[in-house]
Amino acid sequence: MNLLIRHARQLVTVAAQGKRTKIGREMRELGVIEDGSVLVRDGIIEWVGRDSDFQFEVNQETDILDATGKVVLPGFVDSHTHLVFAGSREDEFALRSEGRTYQQIADEGGGILSTVREVRKASKRELKKLADSRLDLMLRYGTTTVEIKTGYGLDVENEIKLLEVIHELEKEHMMTVVGTFLGAHAIPPEYSERNREYVQLLLDKMIPYVGTKHLAKFCDVFCEAGYFDTEESEKILTAGKKFGMRPKVHAEELGWTGGAELAAKVGAVSADHLEYVTASGVEALKRGGVIATLLPGVSFVLGHRYAPARKLIDAGVPVALATDFNPGSCMSFSMPMMMTIACTHMSMTPEEAITASTLNAAAALGLSDKVGSIEIGKEADIVVYDAGTYRYLPYHFGVNLVYKVIKRGTILEFE
Amino acid sequence: MNLLIRHARQLVTVAAQGKRTKIGREMRELGVIEDGSVLVRDGIIEWVGRDSDFQFEVNQETDILDATGKVVLPGFVDSHTHLVFAGSREDEFALRSEGRTYQQIADEGGGILSTVREVRKASKRELKKLADSRLDLMLRYGTTTVEIKTGYGLDVENEIKLLEVIHELEKEHMMTVVGTFLGAHAIPPEYSERNREYVQLLLDKMIPYVGTKHLAKFCDVFCEAGYFDTEESEKILTAGKKFGMRPKVHAEELGWTGGAELAAKVGAVSADHLEYVTASGVEALKRGGVIATLLPGVSFVLGHRYAPARKLIDAGVPVALATDFNPGSCMSFSMPMMMTIACTHMSMTPEEAITASTLNAAAALGLSDKVGSIEIGKEADIVVYDAGTYRYLPYHFGVNLVYKVIKRGTILEFE
Repeated sequence: MNLLIRHARQLVTVAAQGKRTKIGREMRELGVIEDGSVLVRDGIIEWVGRDSDFQFEVNQETDILDATGKVVLPGFVDSHTHLVFAGSREDEFALRSEGRTYQQIADEGGGILSTVREVRKASKRELKKLADSRLDLMLRYGTTTVEIKTGYGLDVENEIKLLEVIHELEKEHMMTVVGTFLGAHAIPPEYSERNREYVQLLLDKMIPYVGTKHLAKFCDVFCEAGYFDTEESEKILTAGKKFGMRPKVHAEELGWTGGAELAAKVGAVSADHLEYVTASGVEALKRGGVIATLLPGVSFVLGHRYAPARKLIDAGVPVALATDFNPGSCMSFSMPMMMTIACTHMSMTPEEAITASTLNAAAALGLSDKVGSIEIGKEADIVVYDAGTYRYLPYHFGVNLVYKVIKRGTILEFE
Repeated sequence: MNLLIRHARQLVTVAAQGKRTKIGREMRELGVIEDGSVLVRDGIIEWVGRDSDFQFEVNQETDILDATGKVVLPGFVDSHTHLVFAGSREDEFALRSEGRTYQQIADEGGGILSTVREVRKASKRELKKLADSRLDLMLRYGTTTVEIKTGYGLDVENEIKLLEVIHELEKEHMMTVVGTFLGAHAIPPEYSERNREYVQLLLDKMIPYVGTKHLAKFCDVFCEAGYFDTEESEKILTAGKKFGMRPKVHAEELGWTGGAELAAKVGAVSADHLEYVTASGVEALKRGGVIATLLPGVSFVLGHRYAPARKLIDAGVPVALATDFNPGSCMSFSMPMMMTIACTHMSMTPEEAITASTLNAAAALGLSDKVGSIEIGKEADIVVYDAGTYRYLPYHFGVNLVYKVIKRGTILEFE
């Protein structure tokens, strides 16, 4: 079955002409086609252009989707989430509204470790069911590719449980799912004050197992004071690489650590967070071609400082946006909401926010040859919006403007 | 037809036992009933309580809505919007992301006056159609009562056009609509440098016309430097009162003006915005029983300071939340999103945010005897959410958690 999307008021292609990412001023170039159309065959984009230039013959086997008056974009790529979890932490949200900090709550047994307790208790089936319905919802809100990290298991058995859930979702769910091993998310309670031993467990057991079984594409580490220092992080990421997992780094969310420099040193595909990145960190990311994945939702929720998006973009670092969807610091999977925060609080333009949420985010998953833009040969992950212009996406916030979601050429039906 | 909502995991009544508003610590008392049920007859709430205490006979004519595992709240009351408008201002949103300020954009011919141009060009029918579809969407997002201001006409003909649109929506739309005359929203371009004459036009022509024709319940004024000073505002509000319209004041959004004190002096039902309210202003509101209607979305969008919600609540001023839905400074009608911002940036607890969005907001429209809580004798404006607890509403942001909306006892069907 083929699909022809016709007459989009704005067809936002984010065309990159073979480039892996867009940097600097390129991030503002969205390749918008007015009265645009897209032809899809067997899930792959076959033609993109102005409707008046469309010259193929359309037969009975081609579905036509009329996008008159609507805005069409590539599906969003959410390249940083922790969405396989059990339990919820709305009570911590309430405590913070009364002035308690994220760190105080963690010190009192809340935070990441409270979700670890819930995840360890939950069966694989329960975790999968929860994650499955979250992915369903994310599709409805315009996200078509999602990265998912482990890191709420923190022991061999439970990290593998999480990896297996992610792996099954990858195979079974409509959503494109990419798995990341984040065994180094925190020190589990049973290794309290024995960090070194936990790192050894990661190096000796978990990483070899995960790598050999091909359970994750990326290996990530929470490189932060009180979690894993740069030396430990380097060991972990290097071991990950040896077992075929590309490095990612949670860098400098809570303070300076040199995590950005480490990301460049180990050849990480992305450094994520970066609220406290320094000038030398920015320079290292630029030189290393590391993508800066910014997570505005976390700064918004926690009232923390925002990452210096302007400096990163102006320095030529490719910037991506992601939700960091997790039950603690950002209970949201809405990419448009992240764009709204980025535009109002990080001086990113709507155009930059869109590039950061599509093409550059795809590159942060090593997938920008397949998704992230509406170009010939790419997978037809396309979303049609009831919106006046593409700028409505960050502008008109708190509402779902999605009209139709097309995943690999199929128009999704929501109940 | 009757309706029985059964087995809500949390039935959040916001019960006020006849009080018009909740203040201070009362704002945290939500009257939550576990395994709660509500019986509705002819659109009015007839019984509220634990399901095990339910003893009525249920016949064929009673619809049953199973709310097992769900959270039930009163419909939101959005007591401050400008939702009848034409055109859009996403380009101003983009300019601000590049550092231009709201005031600079207004000085260059953007801002309120750009919407005035669009509204003057639009027919009554066009305006009504746009507003109608916005109200439809707002119902889907859990808002069941909306105040709408004029103020984009700014001449006799166009202000009346707006009032007639609002009046027709009030009669015809499912939403409960309340109209406010805000002829004093800005000085129209044709009266530039002739403020005094425009005020005279308001006093001599517009207010008597609107009042005599009963076209608005409230009269509002934008009391701000460069708009209407306190002396002019007092004249306008006093004239409005004479013609049967209760006063409301846009007070101290951009700087201190004494607008809060003025609100108390003229007996305003609410003072709205209050980002720059002083201690004496807080005291005046408290003494005057004036509701402080806070608009977190505007501070969020513009990057302005937030109103001192904590000080207001702790001083015993009844606080309400509203969206200020308008095309310039807050293109959002999502009450949960306002609650999220209030909890993360204004130190309001989820409980306070809910009271502020229901009972106290109803009081800001003089309607808290009819709506704003789930209590016997009130209109059955009730919303059922797919949420773990009521705290999910601010916690899980950027998603619509509404499961069912009940308006005056009728379960709304969305296409």
